[in-house]
Amino acid sequence: MSLRVVLVAPRNPLNIGAAARAISNFGLGEMRLVNPYEVAFREARSAVKARHVLENAREYATVGEAVADCDLVVGTTSLGPRALSHPLRRLEYGGKLIAKKLASAPAALLFGSEKFGLSNEDMSHCHWLMRIPTREEHGSMNLGQAVAVCLYEIIRNPASARVKPEAKRAAQAVELERITEMLENVLDQSGYVEQRTAGSTRMKIRRLVRRMQIDHHDAEVWLGMLRQILWKLSRK
Amino acid sequence: MSLRVVLVAPRNPLNIGAAARAISNFGLGEMRLVNPYEVAFREARSAVKARHVLENAREYATVGEAVADCDLVVGTTSLGPRALSHPLRRLEYGGKLIAKKLASAPAALLFGSEKFGLSNEDMSHCHWLMRIPTREEHGSMNLGQAVAVCLYEIIRNPASARVKPEAKRAAQAVELERITEMLENVLDQSGYVEQRTAGSTRMKIRRLVRRMQIDHHDAEVWLGMLRQILWKLSRK
Repeated sequence: MSLRVVLVAPRNPLNIGAAARAISNFGLGEMRLVNPYEVAFREARSAVKARHVLENAREYATVGEAVADCDLVVGTTSLGPRALSHPLRRLEYGGKLIAKKLASAPAALLFGSEKFGLSNEDMSHCHWLMRIPTREEHGSMNLGQAVAVCLYEIIRNPASARVKPEAKRAAQAVELERITEMLENVLDQSGYVEQRTAGSTRMKIRRLVRRMQIDHHDAEVWLGMLRQILWKLSRK
Repeated sequence: MSLRVVLVAPRNPLNIGAAARAISNFGLGEMRLVNPYEVAFREARSAVKARHVLENAREYATVGEAVADCDLVVGTTSLGPRALSHPLRRLEYGGKLIAKKLASAPAALLFGSEKFGLSNEDMSHCHWLMRIPTREEHGSMNLGQAVAVCLYEIIRNPASARVKPEAKRAAQAVELERITEMLENVLDQSGYVEQRTAGSTRMKIRRLVRRMQIDHHDAEVWLGMLRQILWKLSRK
């Protein structure tokens, strides 16, 4: 089901464009505008790669009409609840509730105007309010950034958070041992290795090479470099 | 420890300002600029409530100098790794690694220029790369929005995600039963209740009232409204 990203009385075309871009980036939601500043809406229609979002954006005269088809209506605020006693949820928790609702029904997420946020009248349409966990001293986010952060939390995939990057094929022990030998050889010819501590030096080098977690490809690069250094050293 | 938010060759003053605002909103990090477009940097110095971030921003000629004091250097990309074989991590996972590192040492998060992103030369300074999970068809985010989303993930508190809003004091059973009685009374006087089904109607109303999860305060409001309606009905 679709998320309706409802901007109430937005004034700045750059913010409308940025909200559209975030909707496009995350592939989530459609834009609805309540009583936008007409000039701003017209100017916003050129947002980078998000033209389809802006072209499909619908305008409404009131919040009530904009959220009429939604099973869940959530208002964003940087202040906490005001006159009306709404439950207030942090984005980490609220985002999950919205994602869950969207599995079966449309939901609306309301953003107020840049200057005043949502009015009490706007908020009276909301089931609950949500806040992005910003600092108390500077709670109010830029509108485009607030939309991006909220959409990110909603599409955020906790499972993928645990997926590590594909493991590269590690170097085989035989390759590591060849590197160890050649490095020792290089150090020996460079006068780094003292004869009486040669045994412990080899062990130290072996451990050093293993700690590097070299993969198969890099092992070949190392061998090539060491071979070249050895060649140069032996010519002197 | 502090996060260094490193903007490499930013061109647009609005983006520099927006990045500063996100740093201020989330109370995380300091700004470093590598080779910024000078005019852009000067114009950005007026960003809303983020002046302290911009005033403390430091300029560097190269990425190497900007990240010199960091134990971990992470580059952001919308494309996946290019020429250099970097591990690529999704923000959900990479953000946690950065937060963990910041507990003991400074780390840098690099953002490329609006037009070209990070160059291979820039990326060669990075331990690994990170991508925000955007759509493949429109992966590239606005710079200010990308900074905001990354900082949010790093300060995101999974524990608080499970904290529900403070429970309001629920209405007591005796209050709910009074509401039930008065509502039944109102419906009765309005001709809604048929005599032969009065018993089952009362049960239905009792369940209806319980499903509303009325809190203590709202119970009083309901009783006041019903009392008024009853008074009006009885006067007819």
